[in-house]
Amino acid sequence: MANFHTTRRIEFGDTDMAGIVHFSNFFRFMESAECAFLRSRGLSVKLDWEGRTIGFPRVSATCDYLSPARFEDVLDVAVTIERIGTKSVTYGFEFTRDGLLIARGKVASVCCQIGADNQITGIAIPETYRARLLSDTKSP
Amino acid sequence: MANFHTTRRIEFGDTDMAGIVHFSNFFRFMESAECAFLRSRGLSVKLDWEGRTIGFPRVSATCDYLSPARFEDVLDVAVTIERIGTKSVTYGFEFTRDGLLIARGKVASVCCQIGADNQITGIAIPETYRARLLSDTKSP
Amino acid sequence: MANFHTTRRIEFGDTDMAGIVHFSNFFRFMESAECAFLRSRGLSVKLDWEGRTIGFPRVSATCDYLSPARFEDVLDVAVTIERIGTKSVTYGFEFTRDGLLIARGKVASVCCQIGADNQITGIAIPETYRARLLSDTKSP
Amino acid sequence: MANFHTTRRIEFGDTDMAGIVHFSNFFRFMESAECAFLRSRGLSVKLDWEGRTIGFPRVSATCDYLSPARFEDVLDVAVTIERIGTKSVTYGFEFTRDGLLIARGKVASVCCQIGADNQITGIAIPETYRARLLSDTKSP
Repeated sequence: MANFHTTRRIEFGDTDMAGIVHFSNFFRFMESAECAFLRSRGLSVKLDWEGRTIGFPRVSATCDYLSPARFEDVLDVAVTIERIGTKSVTYGFEFTRDGLLIARGKVASVCCQIGADNQITGIAIPETYRARLLSDTKSP
Repeated sequence: MANFHTTRRIEFGDTDMAGIVHFSNFFRFMESAECAFLRSRGLSVKLDWEGRTIGFPRVSATCDYLSPARFEDVLDVAVTIERIGTKSVTYGFEFTRDGLLIARGKVASVCCQIGADNQITGIAIPETYRARLLSDTKSP
Repeated sequence: MANFHTTRRIEFGDTDMAGIVHFSNFFRFMESAECAFLRSRGLSVKLDWEGRTIGFPRVSATCDYLSPARFEDVLDVAVTIERIGTKSVTYGFEFTRDGLLIARGKVASVCCQIGADNQITGIAIPETYRARLLSDTKSP
Repeated sequence: MANFHTTRRIEFGDTDMAGIVHFSNFFRFMESAECAFLRSRGLSVKLDWEGRTIGFPRVSATCDYLSPARFEDVLDVAVTIERIGTKSVTYGFEFTRDGLLIARGKVASVCCQIGADNQITGIAIPETYRARLLSDTKSP
């Protein structure tokens, strides 16, 4: 069940000499869609939250490529929360163009407190952040 | 068993505001290491081969991030052939810095014939290409 | 005089370890804004036009950086045609955030016919393309 | 007069659908060559120096594109100090392949002290840094 949709227009610089989107760019598109999803809930991948700075470094990322995307294509990107644990969250992404599946991916992140000098320490996702993240997921 | 090693120096532009390599860049590093591996065998991801142009579009890619990499780090990249089928090949990559595991990933590609206008058709990996690809893998 | 405005939201992956947008990304932003400008006129940087494929390879690009841009900033991008010759066109770009000038750049391209195998030959900008490109520039 | 040479091998992901290196990537190549030049003198674009952290944010960048570069090309990159002032330094770059000029660019940076939270303040280039930077430039 998709929580959230956004779109992504393919830019000239996203393509490679095969004439299609370079596979690595889908990971940038996923991050961008995740941020749009978070923004829609007043959240972000890095923000000040209840007196500390928290962030979500990535622990794994995967993508399956079903059909190529090309310059000027406008892709629909569906974002879902695949799994949420105490410290980590996994998002799922589905890229389609006019209903045709282009790519499907996942990104897992862990919640961290970010100190001075970008030192990071894994922490439980704050309850208030979690509540906001899940706010819509049961509604249609 | 690693077939091949190369190195990758982290550039300023590879980092993000978290002060570490942006996760999407490891996929570019994997492709570059795959190309170095192929080059060492006189092969490439796109080349003219026995009268036709063949290429290896990616069908899936995955990466696990174990420890961050930073500007000016020189990573060792070990490349292995994880699996080779009739039409597809999967490479494994291990990024380490002074023996510390930084990231581990896989990229699967299918062999395709590339026509005019970048039209692609899946084909069996030519036997001569396969032989060259596997030439070293049984030796230490 | 600005012909056209678009916006660009800064993504996490656009930043570098200095916490700001990596300078090279402004060139991608300029190209994307140029494409949005062209799209608004039914044009593109690569398209079939009166029986041939034309494109606009870049011959020079420049950018001055006045103030840093950061993650989640939404920049206004003003696009102007700075100069148009027989074969070439130069666009100017101004990036601002709430009226503050962030960066200012230019990109010059030459019109080319693109043959099979991406062979390119410089040609005069077709009159019909030029007319469309300039269609709005005298209006407010 | 070139102070320093390095090489750059074009990767698949550096190319675009025109089959050549995307113009924005030359700015990443310039930065990488600048860093290699600095490294050869024990310097960097961001480092701790005499008790403070200094960096060199870019104030302008420019590139002229003379001839396309393609996948697997190995470019020679010549780095020169074009101009050095009290607070700023401008590098020049020349990309060639087998003597053929591919691109020529410049990047100007200002010396800054970097505080906590990446706050930056323009400062004079420390004399010891400048001496190291210029150490070779009079020798052949």
